Amino acid sequence: MNNHITSVPLEKSYRLINHGPTVLVSARHGGVDNVMAAAWCCALDFAPPKLTVVLDKSSRTRALVEQSGRFVIQVPTAAQLKLTHAVGNLSMNDAPDKLARCGVELFDIEGFDLPLVAGCAGWLACRLIPEPHNQQAYDLFIGEVVGAWADSRVFGDGRWHFEDADPGLRSLHYVAGGQFYATGEAMSVQD
Amino acid sequence: MNNHITSVPLEKSYRLINHGPTVLVSARHGGVDNVMAAAWCCALDFAPPKLTVVLDKSSRTRALVEQSGRFVIQVPTAAQLKLTHAVGNLSMNDAPDKLARCGVELFDIEGFDLPLVAGCAGWLACRLIPEPHNQQAYDLFIGEVVGAWADSRVFGDGRWHFEDADPGLRSLHYVAGGQFYATGEAMSVQD
Repeated sequence: MNNHITSVPLEKSYRLINHGPTVLVSARHGGVDNVMAAAWCCALDFAPPKLTVVLDKSSRTRALVEQSGRFVIQVPTAAQLKLTHAVGNLSMNDAPDKLARCGVELFDIEGFDLPLVAGCAGWLACRLIPEPHNQQAYDLFIGEVVGAWADSRVFGDGRWHFEDADPGLRSLHYVAGGQFYATGEAMSVQD
Repeated sequence: MNNHITSVPLEKSYRLINHGPTVLVSARHGGVDNVMAAAWCCALDFAPPKLTVVLDKSSRTRALVEQSGRFVIQVPTAAQLKLTHAVGNLSMNDAPDKLARCGVELFDIEGFDLPLVAGCAGWLACRLIPEPHNQQAYDLFIGEVVGAWADSRVFGDGRWHFEDADPGLRSLHYVAGGQFYATGEAMSVQD
């Protein structure tokens, strides 16, 4: 397992997804854990931190989110390219052993009864803020971030350090048809 | 001006923002044009194409969006790093000459009475889908994409080609405090 998982202050947690990575969504209910990929996830607020994620009605993970009222958004890495694509293309409805087939290993963090995906670079534990109209009309779910962690090899002092880390720890940005971009060169402007 | 602007089919338009770039939001009402930066913009649906964008209540651009019911989401480039940061940090409420001070040049596309920012890599003309609860409670706006264009030097055949284009045409991903990442290496998985 990964011994580099460190807590991220909630007020900095939006930075885990502020750069627009493709994420993995996981949820647990009634003894079932599932994981899917989502390119459509976005920060929504700083304090309390909130985010949006689009979950198709056909996805089993969506049902688990609706039933449990909780989910995890995690930032997969370039080393998890195949896993990310696989969990985005295979449904547990068709393959009950989806997670094993996709090579997903789960772990728990004490105090959170949620399935976290091992090997990611960041994790956001969320509480669903029920908005039935958004969920039905747009497949749009709003979560409040209640816990955040990151791999200290690539995120520290409240920001990503992709430029100094193993390239396998870069985050991914999905386009379509199996095409991704890794997060690239750091650029900065003085405030 | 840019002679490389080509139309993007609406069904492929989500791909302009699917990889999570920081965007510029522009709007026009009552003879006023304004432009702001937004890291929190995300695709919402394929057909008809929709997107979400978070617009703070203090922003002048938000008022123009609410008044006109229309806006443009555009994808700025690495060459526009300073411009992107500048329009995200200076308000027209404080600086009536904001656009000139930030180096923003606008252009129109026939049939769309909207201000498009020159030099970007992609543009999405949107019609606001009014959702007063989302707008008030979450600063969350939903738009339907009604027109899409891209710079053919970096987007063609329905996808980005950052890997073959001038590095100045890469898109940007904002973190915080003036820190961005450019879109990086292409990676692919066979479907």
